[in-house]
Amino acid sequence: MTKYDIIILGSGPGGYVAAIRASQLGFKVGIVERENLGGICLNWGCIPTKALLKSAHVYEDMNHAAEYGITLDSAPQIDFPKVIERSRNVASGMSKGIDYLMKKNKIDVIMGNGKLISPTQIEVTDKENQKNIVEADHIILATGARSKQLPNLPQDGKNVIGYREAMTLPKQPKSMIVVGSGAIGCEFANFYHTIGTKVTIVEFLPNIVPNEDVEVSKQLGRCFKKSGIKVMTSASVEHVEISEQGCIATVKNKKGEQKIEAEIVLSAVGVTPNIENIGLEEVGINIERGKIVVDDYYQTNIPSVYAIGDIVKGQALAHVASAEGITCVEKIAGKTPRVINYNNIPGCTYTSPEVASVGLTEEKAKELGHNIKVGKFPFSASGKANASNAKDGFVKLIFDDKHGELLGAHMIGANVTEMIGEMVVGKNLEITAHEIINSVHPHPTMNEAIMEAAAAAYDEVIHI
Amino acid sequence: MTKYDIIILGSGPGGYVAAIRASQLGFKVGIVERENLGGICLNWGCIPTKALLKSAHVYEDMNHAAEYGITLDSAPQIDFPKVIERSRNVASGMSKGIDYLMKKNKIDVIMGNGKLISPTQIEVTDKENQKNIVEADHIILATGARSKQLPNLPQDGKNVIGYREAMTLPKQPKSMIVVGSGAIGCEFANFYHTIGTKVTIVEFLPNIVPNEDVEVSKQLGRCFKKSGIKVMTSASVEHVEISEQGCIATVKNKKGEQKIEAEIVLSAVGVTPNIENIGLEEVGINIERGKIVVDDYYQTNIPSVYAIGDIVKGQALAHVASAEGITCVEKIAGKTPRVINYNNIPGCTYTSPEVASVGLTEEKAKELGHNIKVGKFPFSASGKANASNAKDGFVKLIFDDKHGELLGAHMIGANVTEMIGEMVVGKNLEITAHEIINSVHPHPTMNEAIMEAAAAAYDEVIHI
Repeated sequence: MTKYDIIILGSGPGGYVAAIRASQLGFKVGIVERENLGGICLNWGCIPTKALLKSAHVYEDMNHAAEYGITLDSAPQIDFPKVIERSRNVASGMSKGIDYLMKKNKIDVIMGNGKLISPTQIEVTDKENQKNIVEADHIILATGARSKQLPNLPQDGKNVIGYREAMTLPKQPKSMIVVGSGAIGCEFANFYHTIGTKVTIVEFLPNIVPNEDVEVSKQLGRCFKKSGIKVMTSASVEHVEISEQGCIATVKNKKGEQKIEAEIVLSAVGVTPNIENIGLEEVGINIERGKIVVDDYYQTNIPSVYAIGDIVKGQALAHVASAEGITCVEKIAGKTPRVINYNNIPGCTYTSPEVASVGLTEEKAKELGHNIKVGKFPFSASGKANASNAKDGFVKLIFDDKHGELLGAHMIGANVTEMIGEMVVGKNLEITAHEIINSVHPHPTMNEAIMEAAAAAYDEVIHI
Repeated sequence: MTKYDIIILGSGPGGYVAAIRASQLGFKVGIVERENLGGICLNWGCIPTKALLKSAHVYEDMNHAAEYGITLDSAPQIDFPKVIERSRNVASGMSKGIDYLMKKNKIDVIMGNGKLISPTQIEVTDKENQKNIVEADHIILATGARSKQLPNLPQDGKNVIGYREAMTLPKQPKSMIVVGSGAIGCEFANFYHTIGTKVTIVEFLPNIVPNEDVEVSKQLGRCFKKSGIKVMTSASVEHVEISEQGCIATVKNKKGEQKIEAEIVLSAVGVTPNIENIGLEEVGINIERGKIVVDDYYQTNIPSVYAIGDIVKGQALAHVASAEGITCVEKIAGKTPRVINYNNIPGCTYTSPEVASVGLTEEKAKELGHNIKVGKFPFSASGKANASNAKDGFVKLIFDDKHGELLGAHMIGANVTEMIGEMVVGKNLEITAHEIINSVHPHPTMNEAIMEAAAAAYDEVIHI
């Protein structure tokens, strides 16, 4: 039986990052993975969806070729299997990259289903059903999450599908109902609509991307509707009837019930932590509301067992899992990592336009009793946005009136997912509006909108 | 004779921004412009070139359609006049926007050539040669710059041209020699090469974009060469012979002289401040090495006269001019603006890949005696870059070893012009490497490369 300093269960962006950092810190590390190195993020999430969206964006630009002074003799055609193939190739390339990183960092990869059998032991069952026990001083659980199943929307993987199937459909559906409009739902809606599928979004809450600032949500809703996506909010899918032609969904909103036909129904109503069959009960690990209970450094009630990522508190996001993994192993190593501030975690949605945010929404800031100043700058007033044909959207910043400290940043527009980092770093340093205004942002960029939005909060905005 | 609080000579990004801020601060403001509101930046610089480059980028993507799973029956064709027309429309739209801002802020626009005739008076000569005198307590000179003429490369506006003509050529040249490889030269080289012109760059210094960190310069050189641009460095154009077929340039480098033929020679060797015929000598304003001498708040030796933008110290960049304009009028208003830190000014080049930087290069940091730590992260290791087919380039960060303070940031890659703002804000707050590392950057973005580069400087990088 091999003995490790640290064994990690699950090689997603929580697990593999923790493994690498642990190896850097001198630990002997093993990582258990049942399927693909890189987990959902790399193989079935963040990365392959971005590849799909890149194809869609190029296609979208091509359909507007004439506006850019480019002549096409005939309309571009989507070769759906090729689009899927590219996305799979990108994912498998990245997964091979993780394989390389594991070797480079001398991390043992143990393929199979892992299960805690004691506070320091994991039993791994491989494909041939061979069982093997691995032991470590510290075990980090990083098993991630899967598509949530709603009782009235059971996924059959063919007609009613989850995000995994949506990424590898054998042919492009003519029509699709997307249930749920968080990042995953909106990205697929945007992708399929752009390449020509008739898309209907059904969202239970009053706005799409319901976690975002209401103004951002409304703006994305307007953009989606303008582009031709049917957006139904305050609505729910009551049940789905499956026929040979596809699906008939019964959708209920205030006006009553209606039946909507579509080839495919995509259930994108969130994720469920993978906490079953990994030995939690057997070893006596505390669970609360479906998540493993951990302290600030991700230690469970069993001192040798830690948990990170989607199975613990905090946003179920890849970058959160990675940060937690690093914090966890640095603490094990006796270092003094900073406790992660969950109020300073950015969230991104890679639609067209993109959405990115960090910190408090306007509503939340008021609710918490802050006296706030709000500054907004529309991309329609940005030179770069005009030159790039990307005038949709805005930057909205929320400041506390007392010292002008940044409380929240909310952006919708092209490239905003590359701009939100500035606000994360800013919040980390408790930046004020005038510290943003006094930072000379380069012209011409969309990024200037951050400086202008800060200036707008203090009636110093130039370009509106 | 109308009397103003402040009159500004020139309505470029220095002048019009100063005018708006002055109006916000309660001043009665007039602005004198001889040609187009918005100056070179809006009409003949930053903005129209970005529009040209957007067309080129869409065209480039279309030429790789198959890689994205998109089928085209025939190759896309550039409709050059349409490309130019779009660029001109974007520029004129933005110029109209400035017109709107002037009206909204109750700023008088006085069209004509302005000239100082006393410390408080400007004589404006309009198109009909009518002269009119305007008076103000404070006069801000913001006359900008023009394409520099080299003695052995006189511009005739037809065969040997400057940036203005390069933006409005009547037809696409089959071949072009670009002399000088700063941002302007490289952007035009990139644009014309991408749409099918055979381009040769001739740069006097050993590397293109010679103001950038050497590693960045070399990387852009490699990318340009790989794309098919002929790059000649440590070379100079001795003279140009003009025939009916076009130009024959004699180019000299260490190997000797050679003759290169091209339809067009673009001179992009920098700019010359517009300080002639504006009354400087008459009023007795101090000039040093071709620039007007000003203090930290842009006051000249004549107390009522100020100067900002390309005609004073500091980088000849639009965002610098705007910042100077704001600082200048805030000081006039009795406020206490921060003195601009010219070591924290970002510079951007909108080529493919883009280049963006702020602060000290590695060479300069060493030269100044800093003990440095350098961290680099290549986009080839970035998931988002892989998904977006944007693997060229890297982020390189320079830290002072003592406290880990950020000294410089150098980026080359897609979208880096939208990412450099984070480093400007960071430098403004004297950010350290670990404050960058501890800021949870969103996944998957190119922007994560900043966090990884900081981690690389301290051997904590995850993905390489």
